[in-house]
This record gives sequence, structure tokens and C-alpha cells, in this order.
Amino acid sequence: MTTDREFQSTLLENAVTELSRLPGIGRKTALRLALHMLRADEREAVGLGEALIAMRRNIRYCSVCHNISETDVCPICSDTRRDNATVCVVESVKDVMSFENTGQFQGLYHVLGGVISPMDGIGPDKLEIASLVERVAAGGISEVILALSATMEGETTNYYIFRLLSRFPDLKITQLARGVSVGNEIEYTDEVTLGRSLLNRTLFTDSFKK
Amino acid sequence: MTTDREFQSTLLENAVTELSRLPGIGRKTALRLALHMLRADEREAVGLGEALIAMRRNIRYCSVCHNISETDVCPICSDTRRDNATVCVVESVKDVMSFENTGQFQGLYHVLGGVISPMDGIGPDKLEIASLVERVAAGGISEVILALSATMEGETTNYYIFRLLSRFPDLKITQLARGVSVGNEIEYTDEVTLGRSLLNRTLFTDSFKK
Repeated sequence: MTTDREFQSTLLENAVTELSRLPGIGRKTALRLALHMLRADEREAVGLGEALIAMRRNIRYCSVCHNISETDVCPICSDTRRDNATVCVVESVKDVMSFENTGQFQGLYHVLGGVISPMDGIGPDKLEIASLVERVAAGGISEVILALSATMEGETTNYYIFRLLSRFPDLKITQLARGVSVGNEIEYTDEVTLGRSLLNRTLFTDSFKK
Repeated sequence: MTTDREFQSTLLENAVTELSRLPGIGRKTALRLALHMLRADEREAVGLGEALIAMRRNIRYCSVCHNISETDVCPICSDTRRDNATVCVVESVKDVMSFENTGQFQGLYHVLGGVISPMDGIGPDKLEIASLVERVAAGGISEVILALSATMEGETTNYYIFRLLSRFPDLKITQLARGVSVGNEIEYTDEVTLGRSLLNRTLFTDSFKK
């Protein structure tokens, strides 16, 4: 039991309680963070507090791709220089950041919000799958890239979406290449990956084109 | 370099920047926390933000003991049931909490704000040592308990304060007992601690009084 006496201040206790709701932050860490903020410049704690409130109140999800956005349609979806015929299907907002950071993709995204995982109670209806099918049905999309994790759940979701989208005969459905990760040694690469990297081998000369 | 493009939202980027100022929280963890808050209920992020602002704006330091307080004099210093003739000198606000949690101390505290540590540029003038001497000089205090860490810096600070307070002939200056920690095995207790625990041995029957 945490008593008010332990913290000697309800304000400190509230801050600790709120901080410890964050994932991976226990009560001890929360107390350490709160005491740090009390010692630091007032602008630091107030700045953090205001940034969190502003972020949570003003960021919403893009009505087209479900990525985070400060406007109804996100900057990626509304960028006319991008290729709006190619849609990359990803699990999360963070994955959009990762692909954007590669600088290799000029198409649009579709953020599912997770992958199908019956163990965690996540069925297809909890993900943005229906809206993806609608987007394709609306026309104008020639390729959908399935870019989910190479895990059991990711592969299941890839296959589920693949089946739903198969009814569009002109749609090209692709998935990310599976192979040896750059920087990894063959000795430590698992057999399934090695097998697929053999099957999907590419022309050596193609690597000079990058 | 972090570009706005990476986060696609200045609001998210601000929140990540502010979160990553916290000790032990890097940019990756900050992003994970921010994305968690975007997914969670709005009340969670807004509640955290408001709790941090309220805490930082309204908590100050007790003008007597320098512990955190929501009032000019903290609840401990203003509690008339406590023994105001005994002052326990501690390093930090957190140490006050630890001693309060023992339920064994009814006196008052004096929070130094650290220990003397020339390596970290912390001299006696950066600590609340002068105010401790003033407090003793004002009269009414019969015992000062030095309760700093049993580290080199703690012992140095203990000794520094001891010398300053020696000029008050009627003042009793004590320090925390050094000995084998409760639950520790003799085999794994260092020799200095063992030596001091022998020198400062107590009557076996005294342990029944607790």
C-alpha cells in the first residue's frame, strides 16, 4: 500500500502514479523520474507536460492510411509527388517511420494497427483490413506491398489479406524479400531463411544498380 | 539528424524530444512511450501531462529542512507531535521517504541535497550545510544524526559536518550504526564492515526490545 505519508505530497504521488502507467516504468523508476524533474529547471517538466498534452489532443489518424496525422489526410497521402498507385501495408506507425527512413519508397502506406493474433484476441475486424479492401476497390491502386513482420502472425495476416485482395484481377500483390539480413553471417542465419534466400536468389549484377 | 519527415508530426517530435531529456530514457524509448500514449486513452496522456505540470509548479522546498513540500514549511517540520530536538541529516528527498517508511524515527530531517564530491564539482557550498549550522545555532536541537551513505563521499561529508558542529558543546552528534546488513551472510560481508560490526557489537538482549 502506498500511503500519502510515503510521498509527503499528493502532487508527487499523482505524478508517480501517472508515470508508472507507462509501459516498462515501475513505481521506483517513476519516483526517480519525478524527483529528477523536481530538481531540474521548471521549464523541463512543464515543457514535457505541455508537449504530451498537445500531442495527444491534436494528433489523430489519417482518414486514408490510418497513419498519425495533424490533419484529416496525412502529409504522405496528400503529397502529389508520391506514387498513389502503390500502397505498402504495414503494422504500425513506427513501421511507416522505418520505411520512410530508408528513402527507398515513394508510394503510400496503409497502417493496419497490428497483426492478426488470436492469442491476444486480435481478429481481422480489429485491424484496418476492411478499409484496405475498400481503398483498393475504389480503384487507382495497381500494387499492394505486404510489409508485415516475418513472424507467424505477420505471415498469417499477409495471407489473409492476400486472399481478400485476390478478387481484384489487375492488382499486383507483392511482399518484402526474405533473405539473409545485411551484416549477418551465414553461420548464424537460420535454415528457413537460408532456404528462401537460395530460392529467391537475384542476379549478382543487380546489386550494382542500387 | 532527426528530420521532421522521420516523425511526420512536429507534435510527436516535440513529445519525443521532451521525453528523451529524462534520465535513462533514450530517443527509442521516448518514441515507444509517445506512441503508447497516442494509442491509449486521451485521459492517460493528458492526466500525466497535467500531473507533471502541477507537481513542478506547486512543489517547493521546505524553508526549514529543504525536503519537498507543498507549503513553506513541510508537514514533518510543522508536526507538533514530532521531536524537534532531534535532526537527522540525509542526502536526498528520497532518503527522507526511506526513513519515514521505517516508522522508527519521530524527529525532524535536514536534506543536504547531495554529498561532498570534488570529482563531480560538488563542494560544501553547493549543499545545505550552512543552513544546518544556522539551524543548530538557533538553539533547541540536542542531537544531530548523520545519516549519509557509507561511501567515501558520505563519510567525508559526515566528517566535514561533524567538525563544523563540534563547536556546539552541548550537541550530541551521532551516526547510523555500521554493521552486517539484515539478511546478509557473514561469508559475503566485507572485512571493514565485519570489523566495525565487532567493535560496535550490542547486547544480545537489546534485540528483543525492537
